[in-house]
Amino acid sequence: MAKIQPRSFKGTRDFTPREMIPREALIDSIKSVFRLYGFSPLETPALEMLEVLSGKYGDEGEKLLYKLDYKNDKPRDRVALRYDLTVPLARVVASNPDWPMPFKRYQVQPVWRADKPQPHQGRFREFYQCDVDTIGAPEGIADAEIIALTVQMIRGLGFDEGDRTAVVQLNHRKLLEGLCTFAGLKKEQLSGFTRILDKLDKIGRDAVFKELGDLGVTDNHLEALGEVLAIDNTNVETLQALRERLAGIETAQEGIDSLFAILDYLSHLDVPVEAVNINPNLARGLDYYTGAVFETTLPRQPHIGSLTGGGRYDELIALYSGRDLPAVGTTIGLDRIFAAMEQLGMVDTGVGSVTRALIAAYSKEEIPAALNVLKAFRAAGLPSELFPTAGKLKKPFSYADKQGIPFVAVIGPDEAADPQNLKVSLKQLAKSEQAVVTVAEAIATMLDE
Amino acid sequence: MAKIQPRSFKGTRDFTPREMIPREALIDSIKSVFRLYGFSPLETPALEMLEVLSGKYGDEGEKLLYKLDYKNDKPRDRVALRYDLTVPLARVVASNPDWPMPFKRYQVQPVWRADKPQPHQGRFREFYQCDVDTIGAPEGIADAEIIALTVQMIRGLGFDEGDRTAVVQLNHRKLLEGLCTFAGLKKEQLSGFTRILDKLDKIGRDAVFKELGDLGVTDNHLEALGEVLAIDNTNVETLQALRERLAGIETAQEGIDSLFAILDYLSHLDVPVEAVNINPNLARGLDYYTGAVFETTLPRQPHIGSLTGGGRYDELIALYSGRDLPAVGTTIGLDRIFAAMEQLGMVDTGVGSVTRALIAAYSKEEIPAALNVLKAFRAAGLPSELFPTAGKLKKPFSYADKQGIPFVAVIGPDEAADPQNLKVSLKQLAKSEQAVVTVAEAIATMLDE
Repeated sequence: MAKIQPRSFKGTRDFTPREMIPREALIDSIKSVFRLYGFSPLETPALEMLEVLSGKYGDEGEKLLYKLDYKNDKPRDRVALRYDLTVPLARVVASNPDWPMPFKRYQVQPVWRADKPQPHQGRFREFYQCDVDTIGAPEGIADAEIIALTVQMIRGLGFDEGDRTAVVQLNHRKLLEGLCTFAGLKKEQLSGFTRILDKLDKIGRDAVFKELGDLGVTDNHLEALGEVLAIDNTNVETLQALRERLAGIETAQEGIDSLFAILDYLSHLDVPVEAVNINPNLARGLDYYTGAVFETTLPRQPHIGSLTGGGRYDELIALYSGRDLPAVGTTIGLDRIFAAMEQLGMVDTGVGSVTRALIAAYSKEEIPAALNVLKAFRAAGLPSELFPTAGKLKKPFSYADKQGIPFVAVIGPDEAADPQNLKVSLKQLAKSEQAVVTVAEAIATMLDE
Repeated sequence: MAKIQPRSFKGTRDFTPREMIPREALIDSIKSVFRLYGFSPLETPALEMLEVLSGKYGDEGEKLLYKLDYKNDKPRDRVALRYDLTVPLARVVASNPDWPMPFKRYQVQPVWRADKPQPHQGRFREFYQCDVDTIGAPEGIADAEIIALTVQMIRGLGFDEGDRTAVVQLNHRKLLEGLCTFAGLKKEQLSGFTRILDKLDKIGRDAVFKELGDLGVTDNHLEALGEVLAIDNTNVETLQALRERLAGIETAQEGIDSLFAILDYLSHLDVPVEAVNINPNLARGLDYYTGAVFETTLPRQPHIGSLTGGGRYDELIALYSGRDLPAVGTTIGLDRIFAAMEQLGMVDTGVGSVTRALIAAYSKEEIPAALNVLKAFRAAGLPSELFPTAGKLKKPFSYADKQGIPFVAVIGPDEAADPQNLKVSLKQLAKSEQAVVTVAEAIATMLDE
């Protein structure tokens, strides 16, 4: 066996303990909110039949499928790595026609894209997706629930005040359809219209209006549209103003009704009014949305993109499974949220170990006593370890310092003298003092911290 | 888009909520023990450079690598799915020469093998591995810690009494080497000797002895070996008997010394004496073990294979990383443990949802009140959901019954009459009674259950 060249595949990442410790805490926190809202875990395999994945992601997506080099395959037996979590969800629902509805699931698993990686811009070939969806529930409560869950999840992470306040931007596909009509465009142009509108944050109003002009929107219509899109008031006032300006456009009125209903549900769930913003500019690129669409943004951190994004897609699952199953859900942008938390100082990646207490034996003679102390620390729920070699106390202290372990408990002949009453010399690395205390006192001090 | 043929790749599995709910509980429980022992999480990508994986698993393993069909690759840029978690660990350690030692990590991720799947025998193409290893610590405490962790983990899952008692079988490579000498074989024959011994459980003593005879062990030697392997007493007595019988064989004496030391460490960690069994028959197939080897078995369920398996491998990481890094660790057989728990009735796969309380509105008028109740249930920490359509109470009750949701709270006009004092008609599905109670009373009842 030759020495490994420690080379990784570009666009993939190791998550070392320094990243994994806060990352696991983040994922656990998100999962606990999913569960509180009655969503249950699902996992699907990384490998799916190519025919299940093929033709679902458009020409661009098709090129990004990682296929296996598996000899002697019949074409219909070819296999690829999953591209997202939505098609696997559709396959699972289609495979289980006897499941009661609604089916509420969350799923946190990696996906793969054979893309040019740009790690510095957060584009990877292997990355986690974190999806939560309700299948088989009509528009209304289920949509409000996904939004309420998003608010509780994101605020619970600390995006709840000052410069790091998160807001869910909310719009409705039918309101967008109405705006398309209002702009003098035909229904067939809706897809192009929303795609242009979606770029507002990136390229600005003037560039968007130029593109809309190119699409065929007249100057008069552009002026009127500009006024409507500029409406920015309390949610209820915004919707009322839109209702007046878009009078006579039926789809727009239906969308506005839906948004009023969702706002009403949200108020009964005590979602703070300021946590949701009706935003007629919000388009979201994907064609498959049919109702409410939403994104979480940090309005005071415009350089950080949206942290979550989702909406209602009533036709997608039906197309896949052959059953009429309306659906609503959202993707939680794990990597984006983690990066935002790092950038805003909300997460600590300076700790290389889960250990709270490192025990160091002064010499081999104290190892039995050290193991007894170790046992007592663990029985109190404190993650602990014994430095594997006795003596040379500089080594365990240096190890604890580098790993970010907060406490070192040294056991020498004096501390171990009475086996019925073991003591330790406890040092909190962030402070200068060191004190000889009983094991019970050491535990109390560490649990207190 | 055509309807998906809901076909999965053979040898892969969906984990539906019914499996995922107990599976996540199992994994969380295992992780919490890892952390208590000071092991920190690591994740590595599914995709590794082929040159990193190649030549590490022998000829058989080489054929089982899933390679990507990635056009225009230079041979050295080829990529494959990871085969285990040990080589990625070695790559990570080699990539981070500045890390302080010991490096204690756990890792719970899927691996892939291009094998003929035999799902009914538990052989899959995609399955989870769950590894815990200490890199950079010499023989002794670190070995005892891995064994103590195994005992605490497995007993904590309920494998601690009667027919489901788990026992860690413990042996030492050097003792095996000594037995090989004792059997009159040469050192070069050790690998063949242990491979035959490893089959004792599967093919029985007579067949093993026949194969040993074929390897060149004389009848006299076989008789003596048979007597030694039959020694089965308390651990200390077994080791003492082995010490006498193998007098003069230096490697055997070294192995016995090591095992005495590990037993001593375990006693100071209060590991129950009966939880560990010195077993000179235990061989474990892999050639890379250099010291202690161990497996967890259920002695009264011989048809269930070993639940964990590991040992010391002092040369493997050094070969990969170029640094002298002794190591010890174990694999926790997640699938095997889960299957054993199912078989012994220790796990409930009858629940399709995490939801504790399903709220049902008698008609649309009660939806605002129902949302208020939902909010109150969640504030109390109870996973809850509102059935998405009001009316037709048969539907939510049938849904709760199928999903295994224990409580249904119905809100009709009477229950919603006083918004300041909302009530629900609470039914516990496992019992027949239904009672109108306040929201606070309902919460207390459900938290009590």
